[in-house]
Amino acid sequence: MDLKSKIREVQDFPKEGINFKDVTTLLQDGAAYRFAIEECVRLISDLEYDVIVGPEARGFLIGAPLAYVSAKPFVPVRKPGKLPSDTISFEYELEYGTDSLEIHKDAILPGQKVLITDDLLATGGTVSAIVKLIESLGGVVVGLVFLMELDFLGGRSKIGDYRYESLIRYDA
Amino acid sequence: MDLKSKIREVQDFPKEGINFKDVTTLLQDGAAYRFAIEECVRLISDLEYDVIVGPEARGFLIGAPLAYVSAKPFVPVRKPGKLPSDTISFEYELEYGTDSLEIHKDAILPGQKVLITDDLLATGGTVSAIVKLIESLGGVVVGLVFLMELDFLGGRSKIGDYRYESLIRYDA
Repeated sequence: MDLKSKIREVQDFPKEGINFKDVTTLLQDGAAYRFAIEECVRLISDLEYDVIVGPEARGFLIGAPLAYVSAKPFVPVRKPGKLPSDTISFEYELEYGTDSLEIHKDAILPGQKVLITDDLLATGGTVSAIVKLIESLGGVVVGLVFLMELDFLGGRSKIGDYRYESLIRYDA
Repeated sequence: MDLKSKIREVQDFPKEGINFKDVTTLLQDGAAYRFAIEECVRLISDLEYDVIVGPEARGFLIGAPLAYVSAKPFVPVRKPGKLPSDTISFEYELEYGTDSLEIHKDAILPGQKVLITDDLLATGGTVSAIVKLIESLGGVVVGLVFLMELDFLGGRSKIGDYRYESLIRYDA
């Protein structure tokens, strides 16, 4: 199945010059969405992990079905003020300005093997912050899986020496 | 399985007097999370629907696995400015102030049968807004399914005459 043909490209969103990859058109095709999740599962089928971590909101669209398929825990990473119990947070740079992400302190146990997932690897800022949060709690990142990757932004180099996979790649 | 025992209650979040139902502790138990999704599927097993609609961010945690299981489309409802293509929006009242939700104009086709899902039915404000958005696009709401319901807030009466189900109910 040509998954890339299911992704709508929206010019100049969220600002001029950006060619936004809109995953909602993939989600709107139930068979394609299911297939995409199965393909993500296949990419990481040799990995052993205890927990899946993904950021709000679009990361949940990949992480939640992966957790269902594997019957593994899902740990949400959220914007400040959304998680109700004790959290740690990490500030990171966006393309424009900074942002901050939080995780529950008791969400990861020391030594747990963690799979990180998100819909998109772009500059790698979000995912680097997630790695920091997990490692602060003593978790061991064993891999990362993305539905889409923007190769030309070089996010891969920001991730560091972790196993990572992406299903749909864009070189421009 | 006693799913209610998997939900953490956090006092005074997001403000004093609120006993917040924290679903993250359920998500952290992979078997319980999977079981909860299967139970939601069971509650609506007699329903025929074409599309699943759910709001960011926690609604994705239920809607995305439901879409995977049923191989049906998932349509996200989002906060303003998050959806890249043409949207319609609806403003609704929160417990404190107002908020607004958006859906892509082309996300629902006239006559499509829609299942709405979210993690929590509280006052019913969010879900009423979602019903309005769907019906504005010509969609037919055939049912609603919630992981949790706060019976004592009376959100059910706000929903109107739609088939609805909830898995975990709180009467205080």
